[in-house]
Amino acid sequence: MKQDEIEAAHARIAAHIRRTPIMEADGVSLKLECLQHTGSFKPRGAFNNLLSRAAPGAGVATASGGNHGAAVAYAARELGLAAKVFVPDIAAPLKIEKIRSYGADIHVEGRTYFDALALCEAHVAASGALAIHAYDSPETVAGQGTVGLEWERDLAKLGLPGLDTMLVAVGGGGLISGVAAWFAGRARVIGVEPQGSRALHAALQAGRPVDVEVKSAAADSLGARRVGAVNFDICRHAVERVALVDDAAISAAQRKLWRDFNIVTEPGGAAAYAALLSGAYRPGAGERLGVLVCGANADLATLAG
Amino acid sequence: MKQDEIEAAHARIAAHIRRTPIMEADGVSLKLECLQHTGSFKPRGAFNNLLSRAAPGAGVATASGGNHGAAVAYAARELGLAAKVFVPDIAAPLKIEKIRSYGADIHVEGRTYFDALALCEAHVAASGALAIHAYDSPETVAGQGTVGLEWERDLAKLGLPGLDTMLVAVGGGGLISGVAAWFAGRARVIGVEPQGSRALHAALQAGRPVDVEVKSAAADSLGARRVGAVNFDICRHAVERVALVDDAAISAAQRKLWRDFNIVTEPGGAAAYAALLSGAYRPGAGERLGVLVCGANADLATLAG
Repeated sequence: MKQDEIEAAHARIAAHIRRTPIMEADGVSLKLECLQHTGSFKPRGAFNNLLSRAAPGAGVATASGGNHGAAVAYAARELGLAAKVFVPDIAAPLKIEKIRSYGADIHVEGRTYFDALALCEAHVAASGALAIHAYDSPETVAGQGTVGLEWERDLAKLGLPGLDTMLVAVGGGGLISGVAAWFAGRARVIGVEPQGSRALHAALQAGRPVDVEVKSAAADSLGARRVGAVNFDICRHAVERVALVDDAAISAAQRKLWRDFNIVTEPGGAAAYAALLSGAYRPGAGERLGVLVCGANADLATLAG
Repeated sequence: MKQDEIEAAHARIAAHIRRTPIMEADGVSLKLECLQHTGSFKPRGAFNNLLSRAAPGAGVATASGGNHGAAVAYAARELGLAAKVFVPDIAAPLKIEKIRSYGADIHVEGRTYFDALALCEAHVAASGALAIHAYDSPETVAGQGTVGLEWERDLAKLGLPGLDTMLVAVGGGGLISGVAAWFAGRARVIGVEPQGSRALHAALQAGRPVDVEVKSAAADSLGARRVGAVNFDICRHAVERVALVDDAAISAAQRKLWRDFNIVTEPGGAAAYAALLSGAYRPGAGERLGVLVCGANADLATLAG
C-alpha cells in the first residue's frame, strides 16, 4: 500500500473522525487513539469503507470482536445506513451495549470472532449486504493507516522529534499494517501480541498466515486466529518483529496507564504499552519511541478493583 | 498578574509537568489537563511554589480537598523534600491513597477544606514548615496560568483557531485566576461553579470575597467556602461571569465524557463541560469555545454504575 492511498483515506474521513491527541510521557510519544469515537481506532477503517464503497439497499454487515462492530455501527448511523453486526459471546458487555446504542442490528453468537465471521458471511451471501472486513481489506488498512499520518504530522507541528520506533498492538493486523505502510522505510514498527494470541508472530515465522490458538485476556480485541492476507503482505516487509506480552504484563500496563496517566484502556489497548513496561521491548540509548494506545473500552469496575 | 510571570513559571516547571494535550470535540477545544501528573492541574502551582521559594528543614505543608495535596506530595517527592498534607474527612479515598503513595505525611481531620487549613496553619506556626496555599498565592496562580499558555500556543502550532471564550471550573479560584491572567483582554473567561458551591459567583456579586455555604457533589475539589484574595483581585477584572451548574448536570457531563470521549473526570473536572452540556453557558453563532477538563480523580466503580 502506498502513502497516497492513506492520504486519500485521511481526506475522505477527516470530517468524521477525531484527530486524536499525542502526549509526551517520560520521553515516549503516546498516540491517544483510545479517545477516538466509539473508544478505539476502528472508525477510521469503517468510515473509509463506507465512504469509498457504495452500500446496497440491504445496508452493511460486519463481524467483530466488538470494537470494529461498534465502529461500523457508529459510522453507518452517521451516514444514514443500516448495519448488521455479528459478535461472538466473548464480546464485552460495554461493546455490545455501544453497538446497540448506535442503532445497529446486533447478533451475538459463537465462541470466537471467526464464528461470528462465518455467520456474517452467510448473511451477506443471502442478503446482498456490503461486507466490511475488520482488517483484511485495503479500505480498512488505509483507514487505520491514518493514525500514522496524524502522529507523524502532529509531532512535526508541535516541534517534537519524529519517531525511530513505534509499538503497535496486533489482532488481525489491520492497524499495524496501515501504520507500517505509512512509515515504511522511515521508522521501525514493532508488533505487540499477547503470548496467548500471536497470529502475526506465527505468520512471520511460517512465512505465511497460519492458524494459532487464542487464549488471552485481550482476546475480545486482539483475538484473531490468523492475520489477514492483505495485512500479512504489508507486515512481512514493513514490520520488524513482534514482541510478546503475557496477561499479567497487560494488566499491569492497564493499571499504570490509569494510575499514573489517568487514561483508561482495555487489555488490547494497553498491550503496546505493556511491551515497554515489561521489557518485552527495550529501546536502545537515545531511541525515540512511540506507543500507540488504541482502545478504551474497559470495564471500569474491573479496572477500579 | 502579568503574562511574563506566567511565562517565567512555565520555564521553571516545564521539565516537571506534562504538556497536556488538546483535542477538538464537535468544534470545541478541550484542554485535557485531567491527564496531568496526579490527575489534576495542581502540580503546576505546586512545582512553581517549590521551585521559587526555599523550603526549610521542616519541609513543606499544605491543606487541600485532596488534589492540591496530591500535587504537593508528588512535587515534594520529585524534588526530595518532606511534605505534610492536611485533608478533611470528605477527601476522596483515591486522593488520600495517592497522597500516601507519594510518601507524604498525611493528616485526615475536619469536615471541610477550611478545617484542614486551620490545622495546617497551626502546624506551620509550630514547625516553621513552608506553607503552600492551594490557591491564594501568586506562585500558585502563576503556575496554574501555564495551562492557558500551553493551550493558546498549542492551538497555534497545530494550526487550529484561537479561542474566543473558555469555560473554567472554580473552587478557590487558583486555576481560573491564572488562566484569566494569561488571556486577559484577549479572550473571555467564564467561570463555572456548582450551584451549591458558588464562592466566586457570590464574590463578584458582593464586590469582595464572601463566605458561602458549600453543598455539592464536587465539594472535594471545588468546595472552597470563599475565593482567595489574590484570585479575586484578578477575577474581578478578567472573568466575565460565572455560570452555575447543578449536581445532575455535572453527573451527566461525567457520564458523557466517559461514554462519548473515553475520558474519566471527577465531578469538579467535568463541571466546565457541564456548563456547555446543560446550556448554563450557550455559545453564540460562530463563537470559538474552549473547555478546560481539569481533574480525573474519579471513583471508577461509581462512574461505571
